[in-house]
Amino acid sequence: MHEQITLYTAKICPFAHRVELALEEAKAGFTSYEIDLKNKPEWYAPQVNPASKVPAIAYGGPQVAPDQPSPDSVKLAESLVLVEFVADLFPDAHILPADPVKRARARFFIDAVTTRFLPAYMGPVARGTPFEPFWDALEFIQALLPAEAEGTYAVGNEFTAADIAIAPFLARMEVWMRHDIGAYPAGEGHKAAEYFFHGPRFARFVRYFEAIKARESFKVTFHPEVIQNTYSARFKPMREQLAMQAAATKA
Amino acid sequence: MHEQITLYTAKICPFAHRVELALEEAKAGFTSYEIDLKNKPEWYAPQVNPASKVPAIAYGGPQVAPDQPSPDSVKLAESLVLVEFVADLFPDAHILPADPVKRARARFFIDAVTTRFLPAYMGPVARGTPFEPFWDALEFIQALLPAEAEGTYAVGNEFTAADIAIAPFLARMEVWMRHDIGAYPAGEGHKAAEYFFHGPRFARFVRYFEAIKARESFKVTFHPEVIQNTYSARFKPMREQLAMQAAATKA
Repeated sequence: MHEQITLYTAKICPFAHRVELALEEAKAGFTSYEIDLKNKPEWYAPQVNPASKVPAIAYGGPQVAPDQPSPDSVKLAESLVLVEFVADLFPDAHILPADPVKRARARFFIDAVTTRFLPAYMGPVARGTPFEPFWDALEFIQALLPAEAEGTYAVGNEFTAADIAIAPFLARMEVWMRHDIGAYPAGEGHKAAEYFFHGPRFARFVRYFEAIKARESFKVTFHPEVIQNTYSARFKPMREQLAMQAAATKA
Repeated sequence: MHEQITLYTAKICPFAHRVELALEEAKAGFTSYEIDLKNKPEWYAPQVNPASKVPAIAYGGPQVAPDQPSPDSVKLAESLVLVEFVADLFPDAHILPADPVKRARARFFIDAVTTRFLPAYMGPVARGTPFEPFWDALEFIQALLPAEAEGTYAVGNEFTAADIAIAPFLARMEVWMRHDIGAYPAGEGHKAAEYFFHGPRFARFVRYFEAIKARESFKVTFHPEVIQNTYSARFKPMREQLAMQAAATKA
């Protein structure tokens, strides 16, 4: 029996989403507390996470209200650290496989997500940079996926921390593409959605993503309307600003 | 009983050094093969590591000469993935502690090494940039160390993957400081050595580093003369070039 787990999270945050997925996959009982990232409570940084980010976990100690954290719980942070922590607490959930070689493969995939995919991920949507480096990063990850006959997920037929590491970003990507939300010019999101979801280049990736979306843990942790609303507010001014700059350059 | 382990490594490389430390701490029997990074063998990328970097491990398969790797061994790469792999293969070595909370703390420390320490580490020595951001990064790491009464190493009295993650970089730092090797102006390395090793600011860090250096695993895996010679050849031209640029700016 594990001790109490309180997760400090935010629906908008892909890093926090990772830990929610891990906890759901583990069927861990836990208390979830939504942090308003635009208006963080004063007690959060001093009493939970000095870096003032989500996700964070308060583990153990007495049962207390999440907004009155106990000094007797252990405070832990960083999404991938927390996913491994959940995997360690609940080994039977196989969030990391039991086999050391498969564990290494999952961690290698996660490393690629961190060092290859994430640096490219926000380019088009947040800065209006060209899509090609983003497609290249997706292609690099796609090349790590096994052939479908050899496994549905990143390292085989078990859903693992490798899939958890990338799933929240793919989910947000689908929202901004399909709703054409981003710093890129109007229409480019719809074109990107067509290219990614219906073109030949990412056929394997799309089937992988569909398998992720079919999981119960994904369905109960993903809130597309929150992403849509927040991204609209965040990136609409950026698109207008870039469009004005482009017009000024032409004039 | 584990399967055969062949480590592809290079004495100069701090990332490869991590895996050597882990294997020595685990008292794993393994075959070590030195890759000449300036003249990599043609078979290395296609048959061992497509990224063409060290470290890499060939695990399992038949006993073969390291320069004739078997297609039947599993090839694994990325230093932190490999350190976790060794920890998983040899749980009794406690390269990661058994307790999930301590494992999380070790991984949090490693994350800080990756995201806070490493980006600052090569500034002064390789690019001649100011020391202050480098000192700040070291101070950030130092603040994560426990008080000495509570533990010698990064997460307590056990030497773990957290210590393994940073040790090779501290070891190389000592060499370039004490021998005044770097892109920085002549004399700055000696001054930095005095500041780090004998000043008040890093007293806790220095005692931590001394404890690391006292370990047998460190002694048998660190080759300071290789670092000294290679860094001299690598950074001397950089110092001369920066000095010439500085003179030209003044003129």
